Parts: sequence; structure tokens; C-alpha cells
Amino acid sequence: MNQLTIVKIGGNVIDNAEQLSAFLSAFGAIPGHSILVHGGGKIATTLGSKLGITSHYVDGRRITDRETLDLVTMVYGGLINKRIVASLQAIGCNAIGLTGADGNLIQASIRKVEQIDYGFVGDITGNGVNTSLLTVLLSNGMIPVVAPLTHDKAGNMLNTNADTIAQRIAKAMAASMTVRLIYCFEKRGILADVDDENSVIRTIDTRKFRELKEQNIIGGGMIPKVSNALEAVSHGVAQVVIGHANELQGLISGNAGTTIQ
Amino acid sequence: MNQLTIVKIGGNVIDNAEQLSAFLSAFGAIPGHSILVHGGGKIATTLGSKLGITSHYVDGRRITDRETLDLVTMVYGGLINKRIVASLQAIGCNAIGLTGADGNLIQASIRKVEQIDYGFVGDITGNGVNTSLLTVLLSNGMIPVVAPLTHDKAGNMLNTNADTIAQRIAKAMAASMTVRLIYCFEKRGILADVDDENSVIRTIDTRKFRELKEQNIIGGGMIPKVSNALEAVSHGVAQVVIGHANELQGLISGNAGTTIQ
Repeated sequence: MNQLTIVKIGGNVIDNAEQLSAFLSAFGAIPGHSILVHGGGKIATTLGSKLGITSHYVDGRRITDRETLDLVTMVYGGLINKRIVASLQAIGCNAIGLTGADGNLIQASIRKVEQIDYGFVGDITGNGVNTSLLTVLLSNGMIPVVAPLTHDKAGNMLNTNADTIAQRIAKAMAASMTVRLIYCFEKRGILADVDDENSVIRTIDTRKFRELKEQNIIGGGMIPKVSNALEAVSHGVAQVVIGHANELQGLISGNAGTTIQ
Repeated sequence: MNQLTIVKIGGNVIDNAEQLSAFLSAFGAIPGHSILVHGGGKIATTLGSKLGITSHYVDGRRITDRETLDLVTMVYGGLINKRIVASLQAIGCNAIGLTGADGNLIQASIRKVEQIDYGFVGDITGNGVNTSLLTVLLSNGMIPVVAPLTHDKAGNMLNTNADTIAQRIAKAMAASMTVRLIYCFEKRGILADVDDENSVIRTIDTRKFRELKEQNIIGGGMIPKVSNALEAVSHGVAQVVIGHANELQGLISGNAGTTIQ
């Protein structure tokens, strides 16, 4: 089977031009097929406050009213996505920027209001990832660059978590390719001691995850990240690694970061 | 040969939600392959002034400094492009939004500074339109929706006139398809009397164009529009029509608008 590497980067890389440029060089050197999924970054918040749009968060998720939806559609789907695409094109990588609406890449439904009304936030539907589109683009030598936006096929763009998008694409593509999923974040991996960047836990499986949660070594925003990763592994994704964007090569070769098994 | 219809819409349609929706329904009903090229609209100017970015124009072209480039990348490539794509998806058209950077669709070089420094404005290079990409997308049932942005393959997005983009795509695709190019603007066609919407000149060729210019019937912004259209015809584009977005069906059937011969 063809090898596909899916890399997710977050705001910490996007907000730092020098780090982003170094990351994109390493990303461009990945052999085989690749897909980049990017998050948001501070630009949306900075721009929003200039425009008088205040960002509200509940459990780490932005509450997306109509104004905020327009803001993230512009910033994620326009500014950040095209900046990355143009930079990859400059180093000879045939990147193509996509939101979930483009070519019906990712269909979602607006999140139901229970305790909290998240607004225009999309949960990807069961069959929501358009693997045919990705296969056409990859087999024609393109590198999809995916913004954290989906659509409901009823005319609305929706805001969707980039970690989830990366995982759903990985699971869907695992049926036809050998998929590697790399989550880049601001630490070198899952740390045994949060203050010691050299305390990277090299491997985590379901049992270890339970233990680490009980010991409060994994908590907060790391719990959904590791849960996401474990679910990918259990759905046929060959390799899932969490680590720092500066060490992409090491994450791919398995010499850096935390491998989820 | 396959039939390809390329339609260009400008700001007047984009700024009016109701008109845009009616236009997209008519556009979605076009048989054969189709491509939509869209311009900017007032949103960039409104948003820019909220952000303290002033728009400067020389000869109808926006002067694009770094801030303005970011603004139009967000608004044209993000907000407007995705709004159109999501709306087309909602009516069953498999639209895919693209800037010139995506899949290296349109390569341009930054305009040389002569009397005026236009800033980040791109002139499409000789071989700049990636017809292979368009062919892949069209033959897989997709409808490219193109924003008025190109790139220089050195990492910069560039601002490029939408009329020119539509014409260059039309000329490049004419080698392999029967191409129809429809320019929509705020009038019902080229008018013999600018105050009478019923005075549409039905056909214009090179000789008639010269006469109309001499008689000052065609002037200002219409001159480059008609020149663009005449050049398309002389480069193998089968049909070029200029008219109102509300009459798309008539423009296609040749029962409305001005046909350029």
C-alpha cells in the first residue's frame, strides 16, 4: 500500500514565521504522499479584537457566532491557509489549500445545543471525509493543506477542531493507504514531568494512558489529544506520534516524541 | 470537444446576498463543465477601513501594500471564496475553491515598478495557467471557483484582476475544450446609450470597437474589458459575452448581452 503521512500543526508553529518556515522545509522532505492539517493561531484573536469581535472559549473551544465564523473563515481558510500553500509552492511542493467545503472534503453537522451553544461548530458526520477527492489529489502529485473548517452541505461553513480533522482523515484513508499521523504541539511529547522537556514518555498504550490519567500526569487538554490518537490506532492508522514541530524528522522515524500504540 | 463555460462575476453580485443566490442557482444549472471566477466587492474595503487599512486605487487597480495583500487574501481567498463554495455545495454543485497558489493554478510575476508602484500585484506569466490541474478537477466532476489571487512561486500571494484571470484561463483551456467566456457586470451589456438599459449593442467586433471608442460610446473601464474579450476571441475562445448576472441564461444562449466577435 502507498504510504501517507498526515501532519497536524497548531497555532504555536503558525504564529512564528521562522519556526513555520523550518517546519515546512522538513514537511516538504517527507517521502511518499502527505497531507498537512493546520490549526488557527493568535491571528484570529488579534484581528478579532481589532474588529471588536471578542473570543469566548468553553473547554478550549471557541464559541463561534456568525461574526466569529466569518473571522475564522477569513483567517484560517484565507490568510493562514494561503500563506502555507504559497510557502510550500516556493520550495517545490505542489500544495493545494482546502477547507471542508472545497470539493465536499469534510461534511459536518452543526453541534446540537445541550448545556452549551457552541454556535457554528461542526461535528464531522459518520461518512464525512471525502476519500475519493483526497485520492485524486494525492495521485496527481498534490499535497492537500487542510484548514480547520468544515461545512454542513446546507450552505454554512463550520468551525471544527484541527486535531479531530487530522484524525478523521487518517482513519478514513487507512482503508487504502498505510497512514502515519503526526500531532505537533508545543512540547517534545507527553512529558512525565511537565517542567522537564527531557522526560518524554516514549510510548503510550490504552493501559498506560489510564495509569497516567490516574496519576494526574496526563490532564486537561492532553486527554482529548491522546484519546484521539488512541482511537486512530484502533482504527487501522499504522503509526501515531505526538511531539514538537521542530523535531518532525525524529517524530517520523520514531526517534522523538511519544508514540501511541 | 468538451464544452467549458467560464463565468466571471464582480463585486456588484457578491455584495448582494439575494442576487448572488439567484446567480449561483443559474450558474449551477449550466450543462457541461464550468468554472466560476469571482472578483472582490466592497467587503475588503469595509473591513479594511475598520482595521485602519485605507484602499488606494490608480486606474481602477487597488494599490496592494503588505497589509492590503493580507486583507485581500483573507477576504477574497477566504470569506468570499468559501461563501460561494459552500452555497454551490448546498445546491448539489461540487465546487472547489482555489487561488492561483493552490495546486500552482496561476503563476504570476510581481508587476515591475515604472511610473506607479502597484505593490503586490501579479501579472500572469506566459505559461502561467495550470491547465492540467483544471483538467483533473473538471474531469472528476468538480467546479473550480477561482479567487482573484495569484502567486509568484517564491512564497508571495499576489493580487490579480479577475477579468484577466478569467480571460487567461479561457485562452489556455481553448486548446482542449470548446470554451464560452461570460463576463457579468452591472449593466445588461455594452450600451449605445449609457442611461438606457435597453440600448444593448448585440455584437461588437474589432472594427466596431474602434468606431465605438472614436464616438466615445465605449470609454473608461469598459475599454480594457472589451479589449480582454476581443483578445480571447482571437485566441480560440468560441464565444465571449458581456452582460448582467441576472440574465446568465440569456447570455449563454446568446439572447442577451453583447457578444464579442
